[in-house]
Amino acid sequence: MHQAKAYSVASATAPFEPTSIPRRAATARDVQIEILFCGVCHSDLHTVRDEWAEFMPTVYPCIPGHEIIGRVTGVGSDVKDHKEGDIVGVGCLVGSDGDCPKCKADLEQLCANQVMTYNAPDAHGTAPVTYGGYSDSIVVDEHFVLKIPDGLDLAGTAPLLCAGITTYSPLKRAGVGKGSKVGIVGLGGLGHMGVKIAAAMGAHVVVFTTSPSKVEDAKRLGAHEVVLSTDPAQMEKHLDTFDFILDCVSANHDMNQYLAQLRHDGEITLVGAPDKPLPIAAFGLIFGRKKLSGSLIGGIAETQEMLEFCGQHGITSDVEVIKIQDLNEAYERLVKSDVKYRFCIDMSSLKG
Amino acid sequence: MHQAKAYSVASATAPFEPTSIPRRAATARDVQIEILFCGVCHSDLHTVRDEWAEFMPTVYPCIPGHEIIGRVTGVGSDVKDHKEGDIVGVGCLVGSDGDCPKCKADLEQLCANQVMTYNAPDAHGTAPVTYGGYSDSIVVDEHFVLKIPDGLDLAGTAPLLCAGITTYSPLKRAGVGKGSKVGIVGLGGLGHMGVKIAAAMGAHVVVFTTSPSKVEDAKRLGAHEVVLSTDPAQMEKHLDTFDFILDCVSANHDMNQYLAQLRHDGEITLVGAPDKPLPIAAFGLIFGRKKLSGSLIGGIAETQEMLEFCGQHGITSDVEVIKIQDLNEAYERLVKSDVKYRFCIDMSSLKG
Repeated sequence: MHQAKAYSVASATAPFEPTSIPRRAATARDVQIEILFCGVCHSDLHTVRDEWAEFMPTVYPCIPGHEIIGRVTGVGSDVKDHKEGDIVGVGCLVGSDGDCPKCKADLEQLCANQVMTYNAPDAHGTAPVTYGGYSDSIVVDEHFVLKIPDGLDLAGTAPLLCAGITTYSPLKRAGVGKGSKVGIVGLGGLGHMGVKIAAAMGAHVVVFTTSPSKVEDAKRLGAHEVVLSTDPAQMEKHLDTFDFILDCVSANHDMNQYLAQLRHDGEITLVGAPDKPLPIAAFGLIFGRKKLSGSLIGGIAETQEMLEFCGQHGITSDVEVIKIQDLNEAYERLVKSDVKYRFCIDMSSLKG
Repeated sequence: MHQAKAYSVASATAPFEPTSIPRRAATARDVQIEILFCGVCHSDLHTVRDEWAEFMPTVYPCIPGHEIIGRVTGVGSDVKDHKEGDIVGVGCLVGSDGDCPKCKADLEQLCANQVMTYNAPDAHGTAPVTYGGYSDSIVVDEHFVLKIPDGLDLAGTAPLLCAGITTYSPLKRAGVGKGSKVGIVGLGGLGHMGVKIAAAMGAHVVVFTTSPSKVEDAKRLGAHEVVLSTDPAQMEKHLDTFDFILDCVSANHDMNQYLAQLRHDGEITLVGAPDKPLPIAAFGLIFGRKKLSGSLIGGIAETQEMLEFCGQHGITSDVEVIKIQDLNEAYERLVKSDVKYRFCIDMSSLKG
């Protein structure tokens, strides 16, 4: 066991402060990682502020962070796929039971015994719960360590581990490709990755946004068209035409207007998680046989596939790199969606 | 043009009364049909009472009925597939434009220019709107006339034209078969057909009902298990296990408890149409990547396929055969779900 530097919060209302946390000694299956960058995901904020108490109450102190890029500093004796000096990634998961039908189907994210990267019971007993990537190092089972393709900007690569796979997985499963008309609702951390990935898959991409100020930026990111969802005429124009819509909005909003945008047999997948139940009109589903679904990150193999895809297409997240000392201010801006499009902590700021 | 006997209502609050209505002279593409039986669908009641005014206001006088079984009494010169004396069926549709992509894909029910069997603008101009099957005869374009397999009880076959195809289509598209675990929510006109068809497809069928009195009947109809949805322990037992659930309930109800019954990547399809928006918890979709969808009857080719399937498996609806003079009483009972499981009008009661 060793002590790592980290930033933690002590309660739902406390600010981030520097701290020291225990990390386990690497077992035979473990990879020891020096963290270089860690993205700031909206889930981090929900957890830090205990906003998901109903589903997973936060245990304090809390050290979030599940968009981790680092350098391997040591490996256990059984580790085959990673070696010292490799640039690797760690996403939302650091464990699962490995032998249930879901794990065997490469769906670790659906395993009943999955271990999330932070705020999950720590099976190794190093601490009451797992501690995430707002830290200078982490020790992770090799199965949950991803290889990072060469040539990508590392700060921009960190958010691929959550925002990237969260948007890639549903787009891939929906069969998006050349000839698809795809809508992306909401241009934030998730949405801007959805635009880049869907465009790289060959789809005709239409962004729905409430912000006129985002129109140009959506096009820069790869959108072919932008619809102001507050303008009925613009919404009318695309009715009944989308093969697939990825809804990336976490705020409560009217899904029915997006169901109306789908062609028959089309599907909307939610990856943002509004906290209030969504009122869905049955007729909007029945006429046109439309589908509303959800998607949760992706399995480890699919995450590796997404990273290769992003490597081939040169896709990274648009990040604003911050020092870890700026976290409290960054969280205030995150609440206001004042970031294009992801904060990413440069962990060198934690040294010294 | 000729006059046909029928039963109609003059307003949303008026009772059914005998009347005489115009039917067009058969064109070259038309089939003239003597109606033998007509099922009483819940949609009939919604339309008669103008309960769907928001989507399709009712034009009075209204003559509903879209579960029609009859005998061909004449055919136009271009009709090839039907001949005098044949036993045929007519369902929810009597027209569509025939040349749009949806029609070409055998999805006439989704055609923007579809013509419903009743309460739709009558393109032939015989009357302001189409008049349905509560009548002694009807004239229908041959494309919308179905062949009825030999050997089925005709009164029980009538409801296949709506309740049968409404449940068959989503079960078929979901790939239900041997090895599938299928839930049917609600044991009424639609649900009881869902049970019979899913069981005939080879699925393990579980009925969800709020009525202890329906348990034995559900098993008689082919259910392998019955769950009282009001009993948390029974609901708990099946959590996360269903491949597919067909929700046949038109009353407002909690869909989230049924989403929780699905295994990962499972799907619930709504065929009942609650009039209030359904509150759907986003987390219930996201964890487990679950789908909520709707389905609307089926195309003509699929309806014919369903009839062949029912012919092979000896499937008909459980009907209570009534005289047309008993319609008003039957509607009162229908409101209370006091029928096992479909009223069917014996049209011989309209003669003389």
